[in-house]
Amino acid sequence: MIRELIEKNRTYRRFYQDVEVSQETLRELIDLARLSSTGGNLQSLKFFLSQTHETNTLIFKTLKWAGYFKDWDGPEEGEKPSAYVVVLHDQRISKGFFWDQGIAVQSILLGATEKGLGGCQFNSVDRVTLAQVLTLPDHFEILTVIAIGKPKEVVVIEELSESGNIKYWRDQQGIHHVPKRALDDLIFNL
Amino acid sequence: MIRELIEKNRTYRRFYQDVEVSQETLRELIDLARLSSTGGNLQSLKFFLSQTHETNTLIFKTLKWAGYFKDWDGPEEGEKPSAYVVVLHDQRISKGFFWDQGIAVQSILLGATEKGLGGCQFNSVDRVTLAQVLTLPDHFEILTVIAIGKPKEVVVIEELSESGNIKYWRDQQGIHHVPKRALDDLIFNL
Repeated sequence: MIRELIEKNRTYRRFYQDVEVSQETLRELIDLARLSSTGGNLQSLKFFLSQTHETNTLIFKTLKWAGYFKDWDGPEEGEKPSAYVVVLHDQRISKGFFWDQGIAVQSILLGATEKGLGGCQFNSVDRVTLAQVLTLPDHFEILTVIAIGKPKEVVVIEELSESGNIKYWRDQQGIHHVPKRALDDLIFNL
Repeated sequence: MIRELIEKNRTYRRFYQDVEVSQETLRELIDLARLSSTGGNLQSLKFFLSQTHETNTLIFKTLKWAGYFKDWDGPEEGEKPSAYVVVLHDQRISKGFFWDQGIAVQSILLGATEKGLGGCQFNSVDRVTLAQVLTLPDHFEILTVIAIGKPKEVVVIEELSESGNIKYWRDQQGIHHVPKRALDDLIFNL
């Protein structure tokens, strides 16, 4: 069951933009992050929610999409995400945030997947501009942005080829392929 | 469903040590991490598996348990974890590892929870000693250790009190209490 959900929880970059994601849905997803483990139980992550056209547009402009696709600038109008979660570290609470970002994002995206949604986590974010347009107080550090919407693409896991090239690719039918290393290549024992 | 699993996936520190965790079970859990998202799809994490008395003993000695319990050195014989996963970053693949650690560990522990197991992620690890006793090659950086076993304690989520103290505590019945911030304290909008 969790395996099924994890397999289905792929990174999606094109969405049915007209399918709205409600504030209540986003709150339910953040509640999953809230209930998840945090280092030292410090709970220093905060979450900025966006699901209006206005803030979605502001956030979209600060993102760079799909690093390996040099000739694609991101989804066109009509295929953009319906919502975003900006994950913040509240520096008033703690200096560091351990491994909390990954855990929180995984909980949020597994919850989204269960609801028939999907998303994408960004590292390439213009954080300076985003903090300005969202008028975030100085004590918030922007860790990542999660785009959320109803996926409008198919993503398939592939075996890694002998070349070892881990770059994902999109085929002529628009299907997105993601090569994964084999289990035996990840595991060690004494 | 995922919410139920996330609620059940607490940090456990005492286990039924006589309940073994098989190599096959550990492999199934690592497969969940393998199928999860990684930054840039680099997949630079590797996993050292332990479920024998010998390597479990070596690993146990390098861990510090429950930072907030100053008078508790960790579980006694009979209540120790039955297995461990040492999460490694393969520095031959990439310099950094984005948010991969948290995502992988969350997938592994959600899978463990579904199997009636539970665990604990450690930051307080004597990494130098652990690398030596496991004879890890230099290109592996130890990120964290996950202890896994059949939980022998009850963990309860509590509302954060007005004092804002996030330290967990154990009551006279041995029940472990974890205060969590309220949802509205984690969320922002424009």
